[in-house]
Amino acid sequence: MTNTNREWLLADRPAGEPDMDSFELRETAVPSPTPGELLVRTRYLSVDPYMRGRMRDVESYAEPWDVGDALRGGIVGEVVESEIDAYDEGDLVTGEGRWADYATLDAGDVAPVDPTVADPEAYLGVLGMPGRTAYFGLLEVGEPKPGDTVVVSGAAGAVGSVVGQIAKRNGCRVVGFAGSDEKTAWLTEDLGFDAAINYKATDDYRAALDEAAPDGVDVYFDNVGGPITDAVFTQLNLDARVAVCGQIAHYNDEEVPTGPRKLPQVIPIRARIEGLLVGDFATRFGEASEQLARWVATDELAHRETVVEGLENAPDAFLGLFSGDNIGKQVVRVSSPGDE
Amino acid sequence: MTNTNREWLLADRPAGEPDMDSFELRETAVPSPTPGELLVRTRYLSVDPYMRGRMRDVESYAEPWDVGDALRGGIVGEVVESEIDAYDEGDLVTGEGRWADYATLDAGDVAPVDPTVADPEAYLGVLGMPGRTAYFGLLEVGEPKPGDTVVVSGAAGAVGSVVGQIAKRNGCRVVGFAGSDEKTAWLTEDLGFDAAINYKATDDYRAALDEAAPDGVDVYFDNVGGPITDAVFTQLNLDARVAVCGQIAHYNDEEVPTGPRKLPQVIPIRARIEGLLVGDFATRFGEASEQLARWVATDELAHRETVVEGLENAPDAFLGLFSGDNIGKQVVRVSSPGDE
Repeated sequence: MTNTNREWLLADRPAGEPDMDSFELRETAVPSPTPGELLVRTRYLSVDPYMRGRMRDVESYAEPWDVGDALRGGIVGEVVESEIDAYDEGDLVTGEGRWADYATLDAGDVAPVDPTVADPEAYLGVLGMPGRTAYFGLLEVGEPKPGDTVVVSGAAGAVGSVVGQIAKRNGCRVVGFAGSDEKTAWLTEDLGFDAAINYKATDDYRAALDEAAPDGVDVYFDNVGGPITDAVFTQLNLDARVAVCGQIAHYNDEEVPTGPRKLPQVIPIRARIEGLLVGDFATRFGEASEQLARWVATDELAHRETVVEGLENAPDAFLGLFSGDNIGKQVVRVSSPGDE
Repeated sequence: MTNTNREWLLADRPAGEPDMDSFELRETAVPSPTPGELLVRTRYLSVDPYMRGRMRDVESYAEPWDVGDALRGGIVGEVVESEIDAYDEGDLVTGEGRWADYATLDAGDVAPVDPTVADPEAYLGVLGMPGRTAYFGLLEVGEPKPGDTVVVSGAAGAVGSVVGQIAKRNGCRVVGFAGSDEKTAWLTEDLGFDAAINYKATDDYRAALDEAAPDGVDVYFDNVGGPITDAVFTQLNLDARVAVCGQIAHYNDEEVPTGPRKLPQVIPIRARIEGLLVGDFATRFGEASEQLARWVATDELAHRETVVEGLENAPDAFLGLFSGDNIGKQVVRVSSPGDE
């Protein structure tokens, strides 16, 4: 094992759309795990839209990063050195660590990766935080009933693609918004969505929805915000539930964005709109992980990862989230088995 | 009893702010009650903001009125002729009827008025639909806990004034927005609100809220919308609940109003926003009515009615709702005991 490590840090807080100026790759020493920690060689790291929020100097559910801080997120790695009894060198694990070649993970946060269930990178997507977000967000906030029409924005993303499939399992009609014909084809042909709308191919989202969801919308799982959400709100049914999971259309806004007011619309239909963070369901993560792993292992839940090669390209992978480069979960491959 | 009746009808659908051109007073014959109906001499009639919605040609929870239709709403009247066993001539009752000197009420909808509990007009306010709206909206949608800060817009109105008092009974800090010093004084001095903000005396609602609700907002009961609501949303606490009861600031809008987008704000705090219609609690109206009557009879719940005199002035009373002329419940006195 080399003693040289590389890690990404926040070089500058972005204004608006981030670019490479916000990132700096630093050479450091490989860290040593303290008791209760693991040192891993990173195999994959996760880039997620919510990380844009951590680049702001604003207190929120995730601590803001300071300029100069290492960037962190979900990673999958192979144990190099263990100070935790339950794990040995060579084990594959997932946890929260730095965007780095080698990272330490804390015992409180580490879970095993079982490559017989799925490829390791799936543990950052369908079998990780995005999968659990979809699971609890749809079932606990969206509360889908058989026969409901469920609409998902960002439907071909890591969360949305799982939401739609779980909704189908629950007997719902499922409609997804996504940003390319390749994505919509994946949704309808591989994931079983009843309809998918390429929002880049139409300006009239409302007309597209009228056709795709002729009975209106009972559950809206929103990852995006903006004009798609405005259109969906006009089609909500009585007692509709809106799970607000993400608003990627607005993460780079510097000013508070404006749009059609929605509160006047929610009175006649008694809609319920609820913000969603997966961390609120932490005590039930085991339930979700087991269920998701069972569906994945039996091929009842399809998943896909978009892989960018090399730690040095991690910022590109992150930036690509805002242009919709990913299908399914966006990950970065940092190393492969047998790498020096 | 005369055989001449007068009733108001919708003369024209208003565009924007309604005016007298929307109303026409028609002379008709006094109707005859059919079996299961009462004929009453109207004592008071209720004007309510939601009626603006019925003037639009849009299907909603309340049927739209057609041009030429009689206007209808809650009334209190004295029974003149009864085709219902439970009621006799001379009884005071409340129900839904025309804006008219004499109106028929349907058995399914009639409730007795007990003048030993409160003056009859209170049955259109604290002891009627507005009181029940406050009761269920606050308790079932707002879910206030002791120590919570509850903010109410339209706080000196028929619904808001009851909301604030029930919140105080539940151990909350209560802050109201209202549109005059007279109103705010009523809230803090007579109703026990902890603070009240005259929104016509400040442009900086957010600063006013910072002072009045220094620990943020746990429950927001919204009757108004617009800039007040925008300010309150910036102060919502983790797990805040927003009961969307009314949006009077927008009822006269001809276009979909725009404003700051709120969905990005609700994710970090996992706020729940829910549209509210009292009719959804119809099976529990008895519970609310009994409780409200008990509090009113024992002077534990204050109430106030603003009375406009004369059926001929009913449209003025209605229009006054949009300029905030009323303190407490706005009613119209149509007749008095002993009138010819």
